[in-house]
Amino acid sequence: MSLVSLPQDLPSILKSYLPTTNSDKKFVTLTYAQSIDARISKGPGIRTIISHPETKTMTHYLRYHHDGILIGSGTVLADDPGLNCKWAPDGSQEEIQEHSPRPIILDTSGKWKFTGSKMHELFLQQQGKPPIIIVDKIPNDKEEYVEYMLATRDIETGSLNWFSLTKKLREDYNINSIMIEGGAKVIKQLLLKPDLVNSLVITIGSTFLGKSGVEVSPDESVELSDINWWKGTTDTVMCARLSKR
Amino acid sequence: MSLVSLPQDLPSILKSYLPTTNSDKKFVTLTYAQSIDARISKGPGIRTIISHPETKTMTHYLRYHHDGILIGSGTVLADDPGLNCKWAPDGSQEEIQEHSPRPIILDTSGKWKFTGSKMHELFLQQQGKPPIIIVDKIPNDKEEYVEYMLATRDIETGSLNWFSLTKKLREDYNINSIMIEGGAKVIKQLLLKPDLVNSLVITIGSTFLGKSGVEVSPDESVELSDINWWKGTTDTVMCARLSKR
Ligand SMILES: NC(=O)c1ccc[n+]([C@@H]2O[C@H](COP(=O)([O-])OP(=O)(O)OC[C@H]3O[C@@H](n4cnc5c(N)ncnc54)[C@H](OP(=O)(O)O)[C@@H]3O)[C@@H](O)[C@H]2O)c1
Ligand SMILES: NC(=O)c1ccc[n+]([C@@H]2O[C@H](COP(=O)([O-])OP(=O)(O)OC[C@H]3O[C@@H](n4cnc5c(N)ncnc54)[C@H](OP(=O)(O)O)[C@@H]3O)[C@@H](O)[C@H]2O)c1
Repeated sequence: MSLVSLPQDLPSILKSYLPTTNSDKKFVTLTYAQSIDARISKGPGIRTIISHPETKTMTHYLRYHHDGILIGSGTVLADDPGLNCKWAPDGSQEEIQEHSPRPIILDTSGKWKFTGSKMHELFLQQQGKPPIIIVDKIPNDKEEYVEYMLATRDIETGSLNWFSLTKKLREDYNINSIMIEGGAKVIKQLLLKPDLVNSLVITIGSTFLGKSGVEVSPDESVELSDINWWKGTTDTVMCARLSKR
Repeated sequence: MSLVSLPQDLPSILKSYLPTTNSDKKFVTLTYAQSIDARISKGPGIRTIISHPETKTMTHYLRYHHDGILIGSGTVLADDPGLNCKWAPDGSQEEIQEHSPRPIILDTSGKWKFTGSKMHELFLQQQGKPPIIIVDKIPNDKEEYVEYMLATRDIETGSLNWFSLTKKLREDYNINSIMIEGGAKVIKQLLLKPDLVNSLVITIGSTFLGKSGVEVSPDESVELSDINWWKGTTDTVMCARLSKR
């Protein structure tokens, strides 16, 4: 499936919200598409088209600029996403394979299988990389091509330590820039982490998915800074940074 | 309190979403401001600034173009709003008074009092009009200056008939164009009425109010058409029409 072309005025708007190319500095981008009523899908497990094809191309443009792409187990199980990059300046197969980000799957309880997935299929076709799965326990029956990384947890609270996680991904896998695409549970946590998240790129599609959709609203209010909007054919894209709390 | 000036490029974008001046055709505009996470206030009764002062000016510009402005009892009780129009082409007091829309308060159970309200104060200062209150029962102790209009209800379901309501407002009060500003319960109902609502003007402020805020998400999904976005300093404004269901 090919992409429509990237809107010409998008790169200049996105520039200051993207990691610097070939930098070894940590960079985390939180990005997703929502409806006006802040739903990221029609319901759990219902794949939903929210945005115009041009913002789908933007997603691939963003992927091109990141070393890794992280999603939660809820998303990988519901959507079976490919997570590769289909956009490249000259569109060559090699460039696409090289620039496809490394999928990082937050599947601490080990529910997902790589084998047989869309990601697996793309990897076999040399159109995507194999995943790193973040787990609480390395499985006995390891899957071929998969890397397993132990989740870093706070000793006191037991909750996932996102800082140690990104640090370990840099140190052990040379993944400096990470794009986090969802789903709701992951996004809600990260919206409350201004020290971790460097930029926010949210597509708002001009539709209401309705109250039974999967909602993204953080537990507390969140202020933003450095705001810029891009206006597309039917969508708008907000670029911003999380203000320090 | 004075308004900042109206952004120069806004009127051309809003034009096709506004009622024609001096037309006696029915026109209903649904308009509100929300956060990224689709909250229209931080919580019931908490007055919340969501948008940039320039979009506040837009609200007054919209009011200038409508005969009536309708809100629900939840909003009038929580916010004690003035509902007048502070914008006019030459900014004169007379023009502002003339163009202030007629407040229409949907207070079927008769909880709100005009006397002592912000609306009352503005009316006494000749900076706003007195309200029409939509009630299920005309009160025995009528308030001075207030008009009471009986709610039009469907015989079978007992629910409010918005079509008869707007018809009666035209026939009895010469109110052809109505701007509906909220709150959540009113908006959620009207998002599902494409035959009633002629246009939709939603300001999205670049902030997250968080999950305890008052949410606007309709009971069902809603498709939009004729979409246009205006990009402000920190907000975006979506103009659209509800697609027929
Ligand atoms: N529109 C978009 O841009 C977009 C993007 C992505 C996803 N989505 C949608 O989002 C929905 C899925 O969202 P979701 O909230 O159900 O799932 P999710 O956020 O993708 O995954 C949440 C799961 O990840 C695991 N996890 C482990 N540690 C976690 C931590 N610290 N924080 C959060 N999760 C952690 C947990 O699973 P275990 O309990 O199994 O360990 C948790 O239930 C789908 O409908 C999908 O289509 C939309
Ligand atoms: N950001 C914005 O643009 C904006 C604009 C307006 C309001 N708001 C916020 O919205 C909140 C109030 O919203 P809300 O949902 O509580 O109240 P609301 O929608 O303003 O009023 C709802 C009330 O109106 C009466 N009503 C009678 N017939 C109705 C009908 N057919 N449909 C709906 N309501 C009917 C009912 O009161 P009875 O049961 O008493 O009859 C109902 O509880 C406040 O926090 C306010 O600040 C924000």
